[in-house]
Amino acid sequence: MKNDYKTVNFENSPSIISAYSIVGNKECSGSLGKYFDMALSDDRFGETTYEKAECKMLSTAVKGAIKKANLVEKELDLFVGVDLLNQIISASFTARDFEIPFLGLYNACSTIVEGLIVSSMAISGNFVQNAVVGTVSHFSTAERQYRYPLELGSVRPPQSQWTVTGAGSFVLSNEKGDFPKITSATIGKVVDYGVTDVNNMGAAMAPACASTIVRHFKGTNTCPGDYDLIVTGDLGLLGSKIFYKLVQDEGFDVKLNHIDCGETIYDTVEDEFQGGSGAGCGAVVFASYVYPLLKQKTIKKVLFLATGALLSTVSSGQGESIPGITHAVCVENL
Amino acid sequence: MKNDYKTVNFENSPSIISAYSIVGNKECSGSLGKYFDMALSDDRFGETTYEKAECKMLSTAVKGAIKKANLVEKELDLFVGVDLLNQIISASFTARDFEIPFLGLYNACSTIVEGLIVSSMAISGNFVQNAVVGTVSHFSTAERQYRYPLELGSVRPPQSQWTVTGAGSFVLSNEKGDFPKITSATIGKVVDYGVTDVNNMGAAMAPACASTIVRHFKGTNTCPGDYDLIVTGDLGLLGSKIFYKLVQDEGFDVKLNHIDCGETIYDTVEDEFQGGSGAGCGAVVFASYVYPLLKQKTIKKVLFLATGALLSTVSSGQGESIPGITHAVCVENL
Repeated sequence: MKNDYKTVNFENSPSIISAYSIVGNKECSGSLGKYFDMALSDDRFGETTYEKAECKMLSTAVKGAIKKANLVEKELDLFVGVDLLNQIISASFTARDFEIPFLGLYNACSTIVEGLIVSSMAISGNFVQNAVVGTVSHFSTAERQYRYPLELGSVRPPQSQWTVTGAGSFVLSNEKGDFPKITSATIGKVVDYGVTDVNNMGAAMAPACASTIVRHFKGTNTCPGDYDLIVTGDLGLLGSKIFYKLVQDEGFDVKLNHIDCGETIYDTVEDEFQGGSGAGCGAVVFASYVYPLLKQKTIKKVLFLATGALLSTVSSGQGESIPGITHAVCVENL
Repeated sequence: MKNDYKTVNFENSPSIISAYSIVGNKECSGSLGKYFDMALSDDRFGETTYEKAECKMLSTAVKGAIKKANLVEKELDLFVGVDLLNQIISASFTARDFEIPFLGLYNACSTIVEGLIVSSMAISGNFVQNAVVGTVSHFSTAERQYRYPLELGSVRPPQSQWTVTGAGSFVLSNEKGDFPKITSATIGKVVDYGVTDVNNMGAAMAPACASTIVRHFKGTNTCPGDYDLIVTGDLGLLGSKIFYKLVQDEGFDVKLNHIDCGETIYDTVEDEFQGGSGAGCGAVVFASYVYPLLKQKTIKKVLFLATGALLSTVSSGQGESIPGITHAVCVENL
């Protein structure tokens, strides 16, 4: 089981038995618009605050995934929840709505895959039977927490990304059946190349993404051509280019079969610049677009890498650089 | 394996092979002072900011636990890190110092046990061999983030607790040997009784603690008398009283063999009032005082419940109540 690259094999592979996505209006206008399960016309989702809207989106996604899995709440043994707000209040407050044991995680935008890994260990190790993983982000809550109040109307620099308003959720199960399975994983290490520009998340995250994918290839003895798709979370246009270069330096070419969820979700006609980002970004694209391709057997094997930038307004204010982390899971039809 | 109470059994029980604690000056002056591995005379630990000091404390604790386990860094397959700061920057930045795959978690002060559970699943399921779990909190970083700038000299109300300056770390391993083992766990549900007083964490957390301990007793078919010690994280004096009452309503009396780390760590002669709190509180008390009792066979079986209050300054500012969560692990000599 153990190797120098510290990849994890799930011999008893958990099934992803359902996926659900809900997005905001802007996300729905992009080229993936038709794939999402639900789109909001009002980003406040009828609530009085964006924070409450964020909780309601996550709650909707979790309920949606449970329903699509043909399960009821009491059959779920574990809820793994994630968001970007301080003290992950969106996930914590959403968990209040469910009678399901809850694990809160935080590795920024890489947490959707962190959640899939923790749930996979719980299921594959036979500790739980069914787990639901859900992540959410919201442009309006993230922007005012990490950057400037929306009311200020700050101009965004061209290296910046746009936080996705969206929630994605997956139900994982020990049920065998004909479902895409999580067969291996690589837990990321924290990598810091000294980037300090808080608007340039792609550059901050690309080194961690390269580190994880190279470890995954070596640890599982695979190469880029073994995967129908290599899906990264939110490197964006610039981050993807840096990622290609760093991986190429290690002898692997991932350009041919790579898509980045952040690059894909918007048509970038306005000021999304490098594309989308956020804990919801990778989750909604994987749930809406990639998972169905696996489910319908259009593709067989996908490597999903979610990328995170580990910073806070305090750390940046104190002059710290921005470390990155990337977790990877292999999802395939066996 | 599965039951209605959703407790988890670790038939292949992970060993806790080492524990390390480092605390601030105030913590060292309490009645547990002599048990800590290291105490700081300067809460800034020679650094320019309290945040940097917090990272250095966690790093010291993690290195200390690895050394006491007679392992070297490359033998560790997993680092599970936790703190209370926004975006868990202390744990994330500390992880930068180690070449170990990293999972960041957040369930407030309950995360030490959340970390033990996630690591136990990883080891018991045979996905990793050795994992290090570390949590940290610092009075000066927490106070200014959650409450008021220290410079303001705000008067603290009598229901308040004092955030512990301390870091605790544990190495878990699949090595069998004569070590205390984690044999079962209960992942907490989020419970909200509508408490809105941000100074009264004990009252906010007690219902979740009662919910988890009752589920644990029923799910593992045990009762309070089966444990030599029932250790809660940071309920404090008032929270412990509420906890006793709620558990008694369910037919269990836990008063006789219960200690609360928050109640125990200070001599409460100044303005700690209800006692200590914080992600480091339960970790340092368990590492310094409880773990050695198990190791020396003075006691045989302990139920460790870490309690967390799930709030942020934004949620409280928006008038939200404070949900609580509590995770439990049973640690015993087999």
